[in-house]
Parts: sequence; structure tokens; C-alpha cells
Amino acid sequence: MNNYASARIGILGAGGYTGRELARLAARHPRARIAWATSQSDAGKPLGDVIPGVDGPALVKAEDAPLGAVDVVVSCLPHGDSALWMERARQAGARAIDLSADLRVPNEATPDWARGAVYGLPELHRARIAGSELVANPGCYPTAALLALAPLLRRGLVSGPVIVNAASGVTGTGRTPKRELMFAEVAEGFSAYAVGNVHRHLSEMKAQAAGLSGGAAPELVFTPHLLPVKRGILETIYVPLAEPVDEPVRMWLDDYSSEPFVRVLTGRMPALADVVGSNRVAIGVVPVQNVSAPMLTIVSVIDNLLKGAAGQAVQNLNLMMGWDEAEGLA
Amino acid sequence: MNNYASARIGILGAGGYTGRELARLAARHPRARIAWATSQSDAGKPLGDVIPGVDGPALVKAEDAPLGAVDVVVSCLPHGDSALWMERARQAGARAIDLSADLRVPNEATPDWARGAVYGLPELHRARIAGSELVANPGCYPTAALLALAPLLRRGLVSGPVIVNAASGVTGTGRTPKRELMFAEVAEGFSAYAVGNVHRHLSEMKAQAAGLSGGAAPELVFTPHLLPVKRGILETIYVPLAEPVDEPVRMWLDDYSSEPFVRVLTGRMPALADVVGSNRVAIGVVPVQNVSAPMLTIVSVIDNLLKGAAGQAVQNLNLMMGWDEAEGLA
Amino acid sequence: MNNYASARIGILGAGGYTGRELARLAARHPRARIAWATSQSDAGKPLGDVIPGVDGPALVKAEDAPLGAVDVVVSCLPHGDSALWMERARQAGARAIDLSADLRVPNEATPDWARGAVYGLPELHRARIAGSELVANPGCYPTAALLALAPLLRRGLVSGPVIVNAASGVTGTGRTPKRELMFAEVAEGFSAYAVGNVHRHLSEMKAQAAGLSGGAAPELVFTPHLLPVKRGILETIYVPLAEPVDEPVRMWLDDYSSEPFVRVLTGRMPALADVVGSNRVAIGVVPVQNVSAPMLTIVSVIDNLLKGAAGQAVQNLNLMMGWDEAEGLA
Amino acid sequence: MNNYASARIGILGAGGYTGRELARLAARHPRARIAWATSQSDAGKPLGDVIPGVDGPALVKAEDAPLGAVDVVVSCLPHGDSALWMERARQAGARAIDLSADLRVPNEATPDWARGAVYGLPELHRARIAGSELVANPGCYPTAALLALAPLLRRGLVSGPVIVNAASGVTGTGRTPKRELMFAEVAEGFSAYAVGNVHRHLSEMKAQAAGLSGGAAPELVFTPHLLPVKRGILETIYVPLAEPVDEPVRMWLDDYSSEPFVRVLTGRMPALADVVGSNRVAIGVVPVQNVSAPMLTIVSVIDNLLKGAAGQAVQNLNLMMGWDEAEGLA
Repeated sequence: MNNYASARIGILGAGGYTGRELARLAARHPRARIAWATSQSDAGKPLGDVIPGVDGPALVKAEDAPLGAVDVVVSCLPHGDSALWMERARQAGARAIDLSADLRVPNEATPDWARGAVYGLPELHRARIAGSELVANPGCYPTAALLALAPLLRRGLVSGPVIVNAASGVTGTGRTPKRELMFAEVAEGFSAYAVGNVHRHLSEMKAQAAGLSGGAAPELVFTPHLLPVKRGILETIYVPLAEPVDEPVRMWLDDYSSEPFVRVLTGRMPALADVVGSNRVAIGVVPVQNVSAPMLTIVSVIDNLLKGAAGQAVQNLNLMMGWDEAEGLA
Repeated sequence: MNNYASARIGILGAGGYTGRELARLAARHPRARIAWATSQSDAGKPLGDVIPGVDGPALVKAEDAPLGAVDVVVSCLPHGDSALWMERARQAGARAIDLSADLRVPNEATPDWARGAVYGLPELHRARIAGSELVANPGCYPTAALLALAPLLRRGLVSGPVIVNAASGVTGTGRTPKRELMFAEVAEGFSAYAVGNVHRHLSEMKAQAAGLSGGAAPELVFTPHLLPVKRGILETIYVPLAEPVDEPVRMWLDDYSSEPFVRVLTGRMPALADVVGSNRVAIGVVPVQNVSAPMLTIVSVIDNLLKGAAGQAVQNLNLMMGWDEAEGLA
Repeated sequence: MNNYASARIGILGAGGYTGRELARLAARHPRARIAWATSQSDAGKPLGDVIPGVDGPALVKAEDAPLGAVDVVVSCLPHGDSALWMERARQAGARAIDLSADLRVPNEATPDWARGAVYGLPELHRARIAGSELVANPGCYPTAALLALAPLLRRGLVSGPVIVNAASGVTGTGRTPKRELMFAEVAEGFSAYAVGNVHRHLSEMKAQAAGLSGGAAPELVFTPHLLPVKRGILETIYVPLAEPVDEPVRMWLDDYSSEPFVRVLTGRMPALADVVGSNRVAIGVVPVQNVSAPMLTIVSVIDNLLKGAAGQAVQNLNLMMGWDEAEGLA
Repeated sequence: MNNYASARIGILGAGGYTGRELARLAARHPRARIAWATSQSDAGKPLGDVIPGVDGPALVKAEDAPLGAVDVVVSCLPHGDSALWMERARQAGARAIDLSADLRVPNEATPDWARGAVYGLPELHRARIAGSELVANPGCYPTAALLALAPLLRRGLVSGPVIVNAASGVTGTGRTPKRELMFAEVAEGFSAYAVGNVHRHLSEMKAQAAGLSGGAAPELVFTPHLLPVKRGILETIYVPLAEPVDEPVRMWLDDYSSEPFVRVLTGRMPALADVVGSNRVAIGVVPVQNVSAPMLTIVSVIDNLLKGAAGQAVQNLNLMMGWDEAEGLA
């Protein structure tokens, strides 16, 4: 692990919701400086014209960005586009954080340069992130689910399919104009999507859950929904237990007692308002009554743009740079 | 079953969200006439001053309502208050529809006069409703859940706990001012409540599910959530199956082929926009992939104020009066 | 004026917000029948697949619509496109109602066939609409403004520039996907547009105001704003008066006493909730205190998709057909 | 002016929207420390239980707060209640900032102790605020209006009544539960209130406008509206000019060139998104076309809880303490 007094950051794809949020965080970060930021559609405009309140250099096209002239390249490019740029950034000598899904689940097709990517969930992989040259920043839904489930998975307490019923604000779906994302379609609405356990995030959750379980991961059933809010994810998770547990919340309180960004609530369940605008995850745990076999309901909430994306990327940046993990995330 | 050309209706509790919706429907109904409507806080005011666009008599206090001077008394009073007024309405000779939970789940404490109450879910109990003097109008969450589950329950195909993950707009929580229902608290928010399978609607669902199953009902786990929308309920239901089923949606298409208010969707899943403003329920069914044991995900949506309350009450009224079931519900 | 028992309607452009609303109204109208409806992008799909709850024929492309096989062609096409199709409809022998701005303000470039178009604001031009073959349905903002101002304009009481500060829900801006109309951009937002008195609706308002004033119209300053709501327009109008007026609301009460769709409020000011979902306009009038010269503030509200577009088109249709003006608009 | 390295702050009324926002700012402020905070209903609870994410001491009742043990007492108490506590704070030796309206417009009834209160709009009264013991923090609507109008008022360019058409998010109306503030009443709604130029903020605007004009203030007509958003104020202001002005925005650019929290936009008009979450005011200026006499339209936006209340209070605190004016307001 290196220690830097400060770092130059390059942001690929600063025009989307995640990229804008990252630029806001980086602009306020006491040790980071935005050296360049890219946008294909807004290249040439001052950063502050595109992101109100953020001072920084004029946007450039990705192909004009000096990848090697920064300490860390952070990619907010879409899935599918991002891997190529991450490879170029690594070749140019920069450390890299990828917010796309491209590097999160290694498989036989993963090229050598990407094999060392660390899954950037600090609460699970803090030490490896600190020394990493390449971080795959987790998906928003998996972040909320894995932090909720880790205490049970580690202890081998999950028995049977886990239902992860999730709902996200619209910024999770990107900033490209689509009819189904227009205000008049979303407001006063609510809908499920990828119903039937077919969402891309499923394999990411399963891979990490397997790691936490020591190999044999439990089955997961995941259904995301689109909420008529700008930001925030709430997951309601139903976990059949291998055995009854007295005062189950104790496990979360123990596991997360020293985590700066995890709040385990007792006495009430978390809601979006507990986390929106912050890098926190908030978790509540309640035994299910009126059923015969032991089961827990867990509610886990994050801000999809912060702990679910840009905030977690800064948390990873801080670890990679040897800084206080909470720097710039107040 | 009697046949009436028209009917005089009395509405108890016309000032809440449900009562206002019922008054709107009744005012437009071609065969119903609002003879009186009650509100403790707005007594004396013309109905149209309290409910924009609705013409009708001035509101009176409940104790001043001539219960016996109408054909049907419909109660939108709160749980706990309603039963007393239903008893008085019956004693005064009126037929009655109760939108509260008071009469829905008979138990040993249920008095004789209330024992004959029919559970007013027309798709399940149409014939009995038609001849009934007293109808217990179903809860909003149970309506969506039971219509979704009935085809499986009837066929004995449910194996293991059913997860009913539900979300409702705020009109489901009543019109009494509370901080947690203020715009600045609800907007951009989302939260679960009654977590741990302790909501009052659970026993109502279980009692009806037992009836559909021929006695031995499956276990249910029910978690409601508060959506930042005015109206609408969406339930995402996870059902472990006793055996694999080919083309499962066929069962819903068959069972509901002649139902005027049930839409079984194929090709896409329902959303709030499919039903808000109408008395319809819309249902979609999808097998869960990537799990080892057979499971279905069902999505069921209603407008909580219409099919979940006032619209269903009018549907019941139509049946009780021998009218076309869809009269006034276009 | 002809009297028809029923009429066949053709709808051009049924896929936008206005066209969908018109299709909903027409499908419920007791005397109208949708003979065909067009959509370039959804041609071939059943109407009910595109507009939930509306039964009707499969959509066709405009060029495949039998314009002459209906009694009335109603165009919900965009400004600029509509006039051509209105001309074709007239040539095919159909009467026509145009919801676009194309025919509302005749000028020297207006072709002969369009010169007879009647401005379809029934409260101002009822008799001429009834006998018309071609109606130019008013803009949403002008409808609310002109009905608010007519009593003053007719009496020559306006002195000096009238400020029309207006706000509309997003359905007024069309259904074509644009970034600035996405939920994450509109929610929790508010903005003015066309600031500086340059909106297209200005000339429409001025032309009609001149007619009401007997020629010399007062100056108008019009600023529209985009509200984070789906539907509804509220205009706050400041009118310098030529002379003080005692109990000014009297003028509106007198002028609109027999109008089925105008509500003049006394005792409180109108809000969107008074009109959304209905074809009504609601108007409130208050003298401005704490200024030296006499001035009124008028608040005028409509549902932009109903009295501001599709509802008013049906009102015009009813007049053209010799039906009750409120038919199908309950 | 004194210079302090740090300061102890006491917050009266920390449970409302303004008080909570102030507590959030104070908790993050590098030089301020919350010594105590009061809430009558939540006394005894840890601050972080009432305001998620804010660490600080347990809340106390106002009567138990050691007023003299802090450097500055900031009152977020309601109008009417606040003055008494400000007097007690002054008697106890603390400097004080009052966010209520109680001290903003001195009149013959103002007691001696309150006569020295400085109107805390830093862009107008910076020097006097720095040396003040008692600051009357401006109202939200007046802040946006006065910063918009100051360049014209100073130059004597206003001729005739100024129309201030304003719209605010619901947090401007307080956190006490009321039916008209419930989500189901506010969402999808919009309404004017205090129509007819009778809002309390009028006299505050007029008093300050008179000061800026050198005595003879122009007439103001002010109409506030309730927006379905949580926070943010947008004012659309119509100003008749004494004479035509070339490139009028020049005046605002000149007057505010060194102001840290004023953004004068050119090329586009400001919207809520330019300021919500920040202490900025954003202003746009456009000449009104299509009228005979010169007139400007000005659009001015602020976050009602920040520049309109708590943010401005911190700006005043910074000035009073001799700190960088932007400290803690990044």
C-alpha cells in the first residue's frame, strides 16, 4: 500500500448520474483533484456548466484523455464499454476503479490483465483493496444484499432459497432518455422488472455469496423494482435459517461494530431517509413470526449513487491511496 | 336476490380517502343515489365543498343519519368504530357493506348478528354476496394477494411458505394528519412496516387462503411497504410449488376468463399504471429461474381505493342489488 | 347544426398523452365510436395494448386511415404536421377538430380551406362551433387564461400589461423522450421556460383577447413554468384595472352562471385538485391589497389534458353533433 | 469583529425542518460545535436518533438549555415564540441569530434590546453583520426577492408595481402535521396561498427594498405558491423599468462579481436544481419582449432551508465569528 498526500483523478463518463455524483465527490475531496473528466456529448464544456456547483477542467472526449497522467482512472462508462478503457488505463500505468459490471465476476473469458481485479466492497475485502491496482466497484443491488447477508453466510446459517425483493430509484437506470423513464410515466407508478430471477446482478451476488459461505452458496431469488424516487435502494430480504437464533441482530452488531459506513438499527427498521445523501448502509433484522420454520426478514438500504456507486468508489480510492477511509465522504 | 331499479345509499365516514372515493363512485352511478353521507368534522357542509365535483346532500353526523331510510348503508368508518354502526344499520333494516376490517374474520367473539357477513370478494364468493344482507368488504392487501393466489390454492399446488412482498400508496393509511405521512417525509422515500409478519391483514389472508385450500392453508409471510405515490398496490409474491407446472399462466387465464375486472397479462408484467383509476386487478405470472425447486413469482396490482376498497364495495353493491356487476365502474 | 344519434370518430396521433386521453374519453362516450386511431410507432397493435383499459380497433398508420369513412376526424398530431392531415380530412368529407396550434391564429398565409376554422372555446364561441365543419381546439394555457380574463376584457376594464404567470404538468410537453423530461430531472424540480414573453401561445391569447375587447387588446406578459406533476395547469394572473370594482367576483359569477364546466369559487382559491381528472375550469378572483392602483389577482386552473385538450375536444364534438355538451365528460 | 478559533453553538428548536438542517450544517462545520440543542417533543433522545447521521448531545427542553454557556444561540423556534428566547439569550450574554420573523422588521413596538438587530442578508449588510451581537436571519421569500431586485433598486430603475410570483417546497411550511401538507394532498398538486398581497413577508421585503432605494420603495405584489417538492424556492419577478437598459444582466454580474454564494446565469435561466442542497442563490434576467414599456423578468432560486434559512444563518455565524464566510457551507 502506498501513501499519497494527494492524487490526480481522471473520470471516464462524467455525464451520467454516477459520473456526475463522482465528480461532485471528487471536487469536494480534500486530497483528490480532478485532472480530467470525459463526456462524449458534452466535450468542450466547462465541468461546472454540466454539473452545477462543481468546478473543474473542461470536459474532453475519452479518446483525448491522458490516461497515464493521473494516479487513478475511475470509469463510470456503461457496461460493455468500460473494460476496454480500463485495459488502456492499466497499460498507461494508472491504477483503476471500474464502476461498470465488466470486471466484477471473473470467468473463463476474463483476460489476464483483468484477473487481478479486486471486488471493491471494503467491508468484505478491505485489505485486498488497499493493495490493489484494479478495483471492480460493486453493483448497487449486490452492495445492499451482500452487506445484509454476510453475517449469516459467514456462519453457515442460511438454509434454502433467499428472497431478495429490491426497489431502486430511477438514477439506477441511467441518464439516457427513454420513454419509460419520463416523469409522466414514472411518477405515481411502481413496477417490477427482470421478474423470474434473471437480472444481471444475480451472478454477482451469487459469486460473492459463495465466497462468504466458503464455497456452497445458498440459492438466491432476486426481483428488482423501479421506485418513483430519484435515488435510494431498499431491499427486503427473507432468509430461511438453518436453526433458530436468539437475538439475531447481535450478529450484525458484532460484525459491523467498527465499520464507519454501516449502521445496524435496533428498535426500528431503516428507510431511504436514513441513507440518501450519505455513503452509509443501514440494516435492520427481525425474526418472522407466525411461521413454523425459523426465518429472518432483513431490510437493507443504501443510496444507489453513493454506497451503491460513486461513494463506494471514493471509499475504495481512499483505501487504495492509504487515506482515511471516510475522507471526503462526510 | 332482489332486483331493484335503483337504490338509496347511505355513506358512513365520507370524509376519508375511501369515503370520498365511494361518494365519487356513488354520485356517478346510474342506479344509486346518495341519500345521506356522514362526517363528524365536516357535518353541515355541502358534499361538493368537501369532495370537489361531487353533488349531493349536506354532510351530517353519524348519529343524525337515518340509517333505516336507505336500502344500503356503506361504512367507511375506521376499524373498531365500524362494527357498532353496522349493527345499528342492520337493526334499522338496511342491508350493509362494511369497508373496515371489523367483520372480515369471524371468531368466537363475533356476535350473532355479524356471523352471516359474507366476505365480499366477488371473484371468490359471487353467489353468496348476491343474496347477502351484510358484506365484509375485503382489505386492500388481501384482495390483491388472494386473487393472485387463488388458482394455485384451489389446485393444492402451494408447497411451503409464500412470501407476499407488498407496497401501497399513502391513501391506504388514512387521512388523519400524521408526521410520517407529510409530503416532506414521504416524497423521495420508501420504507417497510409491520416487518416480521405481524400485520393485521395476515389473519384475513390466511382465513381466506384456508377456505380456498380446502382447509390446510399454506404459510404466508407478508411485509407491507409505503410507496411515495397517492394510490395503488403492487404485490410481488413468491410461491414454492408442490410440482413443476408447464405454462403456469394458463391457470389464471382459465380461472379468470369471464371475470370483468381481472386482467391476466402475458408477455409483460403489470404495473400500477395498469390499474390506478380503475376497479381492475392485473396479474402476471413468471417461473423463477436459476433455482433448484419449482417456484413462481406472481405480480398483482390494484388501485387500493377502488378494487381495494370503494370500487369493490360498488361491485358488491351491484351484486346485492341484482345489477350488472360493472355498473358505475366503467 | 345536424343532430346525430351517434358518430364514428377517427383519431390521428393516438399515441401521445393527448391522443391517449382522447381515446379514453371516446371509448367511454355513449354516442361516439372509435372507427380508427393512428400511431406511426404502434401501428398494428390493439388499442388496448397501448392504452390500458381502452378497447378499440388495432392502430393503423395515418396514411392507412380511411379519413372519409368517419363523421369526425380529430387530430392530436404535432404542430406543423397536423394542418396537412386536417386538409386531407376535409377533402375526404369529414368534419374535423384539430388539437394542434396550426389553425388557431389565422394570418395572411392561412389557405382558404382553413379560413373557416372556428376557435373551439365553447364558453366564448358556442354557437359558431355547433355549426362548424372545422374546429381549432384551443391551447391549454390560452384556455385557462382566456376564461379567466373574458369578463374583464368584455367590459373594457383592463388597463396596462396583464401578467400571466402559468405552470403546467409535464404531459403538456409531449411524450417524446427527452432528458429534461426524465423523472430524475423533473422530480423535486421547478423551472420557467420561454422567459421574456416569447412563447407560441402568446399570439393565440392576444388574438382572442383582442376579439373579446372589441379590437384593442391589452398587453400580455406570459411566462410558463414546468411543474413536477403529471397533469394540471395553474395560472396566476395579475390585472391592472381601469377603475376600482366592488365585489369583482360578481362578474365571473354572472358571466358563467349557466356554464357546465366553469366553477367560480368564492371563499377560497382553486388548486389543481379542483380540476385534475375533470373537464372543469375553476377560477378565483381577489383584489390586490397594499398597492395604490386597482389590481386583481385571478387564479385559473384546468387539467391540461382535459379542458386544455382532449376534454375540450369532446365538448366541441358534442356541440358539433348537436348532443348534450357534457356527454361523455362526467 | 472578534476572531474565534472555534465556537460553541446552542440550537433552539432543532426538531423542525430548519432546525434539523441547521444541526446538520453545524455538525459538519469545522469550527462550530453543537453544545446543546432543544426540542420540546424529543427532549432526552440522542440527536442522532432524531436527525439521522448527525452526532451530538441528547436533546433538551428549551428551559433546560444553558443559554449563557455558548458563544452563539441560534433560534429556529416558531414566529411569536422566538423573540422571548432571543431576549433571554442576550441577557445571558450570548450572541444570537434568530431565524424567525420576530426581529426582522423593527417598528414602534420593538423593545430596546431588539433594536440593534441586524438584518442578516450578507450580500447587503455584510459589514454590520460581522460586528453584530444579534442577527435577524431573513425570510426565505425575501432573500430570493431582495437579491434579485437589489441591483435595480440601488440604481432607482424600478417604475411601478413589481410582481413577485413565488413558489416554495413544503419544508417552508413547517413540520407540524396538517392535512393540507400530507403527501396525498400535496403530490400532483399546486396552489397559491395568501393571494391578494397579504403575506407576512411583504412588509419585510418592503422595508428592505425601501432601504435599498434610499427611502421611496416601489410597490410590491407578492403571491406565494406551494410546490410539490421538498425544498427549493423559485421566484418569477416582473419589473417595470424607469427606462430601457442595454444588456441588463450586466448590473447583476457587476454587483455580485465577488459574492461567493450568488450565481448570475447568462444563456439560460436558473431552476431549482441549480441550488437545492447548496447555499447559493442563482439569478437570471431577461428583457420582456412584445410589450410597449420596458420591463424585465427575473428568475431567482434558492434552497429555502439553506440560503433561505439555515445556510444563511451559518453564513451569518461565519461573519460574526470572523471566519471565512463559506466555512462549513461547501
